[in-house]
Amino acid sequence: MALLLFTDFGASDLYVGQVEAVLDRYAPGVRVINLLNEAPCFNVKASAHLLAALSKQVPRGHVFLTVVDPGVGGTREGLVVRVDGRSYVGPDNGLLSVLWARGTVKSAWRITTWPTEAAISFQGRDVFAPIAAAVVTGEFPNENVKQIPAPGILLPGEDLAEIVYVDHYGNAFTGLRGEALATDRLLRVRRMEIPHARVFSEAPPGQAFWFVNSIGLVEIAMPGVSAARMLGLRVGQPLEWASGIS
Amino acid sequence: MALLLFTDFGASDLYVGQVEAVLDRYAPGVRVINLLNEAPCFNVKASAHLLAALSKQVPRGHVFLTVVDPGVGGTREGLVVRVDGRSYVGPDNGLLSVLWARGTVKSAWRITTWPTEAAISFQGRDVFAPIAAAVVTGEFPNENVKQIPAPGILLPGEDLAEIVYVDHYGNAFTGLRGEALATDRLLRVRRMEIPHARVFSEAPPGQAFWFVNSIGLVEIAMPGVSAARMLGLRVGQPLEWASGIS
Amino acid sequence: MALLLFTDFGASDLYVGQVEAVLDRYAPGVRVINLLNEAPCFNVKASAHLLAALSKQVPRGHVFLTVVDPGVGGTREGLVVRVDGRSYVGPDNGLLSVLWARGTVKSAWRITTWPTEAAISFQGRDVFAPIAAAVVTGEFPNENVKQIPAPGILLPGEDLAEIVYVDHYGNAFTGLRGEALATDRLLRVRRMEIPHARVFSEAPPGQAFWFVNSIGLVEIAMPGVSAARMLGLRVGQPLEWASGIS
Repeated sequence: MALLLFTDFGASDLYVGQVEAVLDRYAPGVRVINLLNEAPCFNVKASAHLLAALSKQVPRGHVFLTVVDPGVGGTREGLVVRVDGRSYVGPDNGLLSVLWARGTVKSAWRITTWPTEAAISFQGRDVFAPIAAAVVTGEFPNENVKQIPAPGILLPGEDLAEIVYVDHYGNAFTGLRGEALATDRLLRVRRMEIPHARVFSEAPPGQAFWFVNSIGLVEIAMPGVSAARMLGLRVGQPLEWASGIS
Repeated sequence: MALLLFTDFGASDLYVGQVEAVLDRYAPGVRVINLLNEAPCFNVKASAHLLAALSKQVPRGHVFLTVVDPGVGGTREGLVVRVDGRSYVGPDNGLLSVLWARGTVKSAWRITTWPTEAAISFQGRDVFAPIAAAVVTGEFPNENVKQIPAPGILLPGEDLAEIVYVDHYGNAFTGLRGEALATDRLLRVRRMEIPHARVFSEAPPGQAFWFVNSIGLVEIAMPGVSAARMLGLRVGQPLEWASGIS
Repeated sequence: MALLLFTDFGASDLYVGQVEAVLDRYAPGVRVINLLNEAPCFNVKASAHLLAALSKQVPRGHVFLTVVDPGVGGTREGLVVRVDGRSYVGPDNGLLSVLWARGTVKSAWRITTWPTEAAISFQGRDVFAPIAAAVVTGEFPNENVKQIPAPGILLPGEDLAEIVYVDHYGNAFTGLRGEALATDRLLRVRRMEIPHARVFSEAPPGQAFWFVNSIGLVEIAMPGVSAARMLGLRVGQPLEWASGIS
């Protein structure tokens, strides 16, 4: 079992290392994998859709420490969920609710006891990391949580017709799942209609195309250049299928 | 025990991996944590204050490999210090001197024997990493060092009334420690006077505020936007308490 | 033995973590080192020269997962090579051919069986990572590969008179190896003639200089500022010795 981080703490910043030091303390010897620390900053909805798709690529049994948390230090609760064999620890702000809505076998716990010395602005380090360590080492559930029927904040589990992530190549991930889509569909975004191509090497140069990417989402790309820059795409940008409802 | 990196080698660059390969060779099986590899570039003073605050968040017993080293290849010496249960290996250029000045139980060693094949421009890999590995594996002190009473270059241990770090959210860390500060103080920077708020969610939108952050430093932030960009703050920017000396 | 990543997947993006999850599954307990995940994007030639120099800094016995792969999803083949005690897994597109050309004791295998469920756009995760794990755990060669005399795509092993990498300090690496170069040579790039200095601290302020860097390549730098920005240097920029052929 490994511990996987999915946060907006920044891949280059000083936050992830502090979390890793806590995980090392409470779960020594367990591998830590930085799945993504540049999740859409403060954007819980986009992050929730990205996490739901991304975590399915990871073998069951692993434990996710997930923090995209604009409300840190406020009144939102903390949460642990177990969905189809994977466990997740993070804020109860909707971040874990898309994968929850799509899951089959699932349990949820509220974090009831918070460490008294926790920094108010870094609960990822002081609250969620110790609990993630407890989950991975099997010391969970414990007296610091109580089971609840479902997360408090629930977003819908349906596809999200928006850009949810832009990678460093400039490819734009949507919140649309690509399974069993007809490939003659046109994807409409910013008044453009974008056709399908199976892969980069089959798209005409300079031509935007959509394809089903390696985490199962519809993605907009252009061969050799940044689709996001060329087409003006950003996280949150709405889109739709030109040929009607999906 | 883990090895923690605190450097300006760049989180995305080709230097950290080479250091990790050396650490793997001389300290196989020891966890390496990238605490921060984007320390203020070439800025020893700001880095020294940031390191002093950050390292207190890490459990005792760990070993830090610390390199912010504008004088690499010149005549500056190499140093190992042990301060209050944590060990640090790096250049003797002031980087380790703020935590030294604030420490209680402490020892220092000069590096007297340098590997003959060391690259002149990458002593972090060829000089400091092997010694950090020796410290973590208990093969220290050894014949390559000699004990000295204190580091050669000493910066004052008092608070630094400057910006010492800007994180990827745009929050600006100061070199002022926040313990036991009255919260009615105003922090003056670039002719603005900034009030205290306990946490982001309690600050008015669009209002800059200061708070005591998760590593114990006074930090300037704005809800939902980059304080550094909005207020024009950079590492090295001086500041002061409006209501007189701290 | 460790697994080392050399890719253009991006150091901050969501690709490396997915690869690490696969490596953890098939080679549990093996250390993964991110040597460089910001290799020149889509630039096989520059990356091949950088990799050839960089990998010599790593002890023998290690296994490299190498992906710079503009043709992913097309018809290019997959490759494993073993050169002078180090193993490399990646696309057969020239990336491994510079180190191959320079090597002495060497073997090559073509990947003949591809996983049927592999994502067409992320063969690094689904094809190359499992094979790299097999190499590091000793389950190689296996029935999924067949030995071949040499890689299919071969670039010349001679020095490359171009910029091949720009680091985060703004220093520009060339594809010229620096061993045994006379230090009175002038390096000509963009109509400038750049003299040698042994190290940063010996170069005059504001003066560009070349030196032999920590991975054995000729590098262009300026004290305290970004040489790449000041001189307008980018990957691919041609250069030459002013005093004739090297």
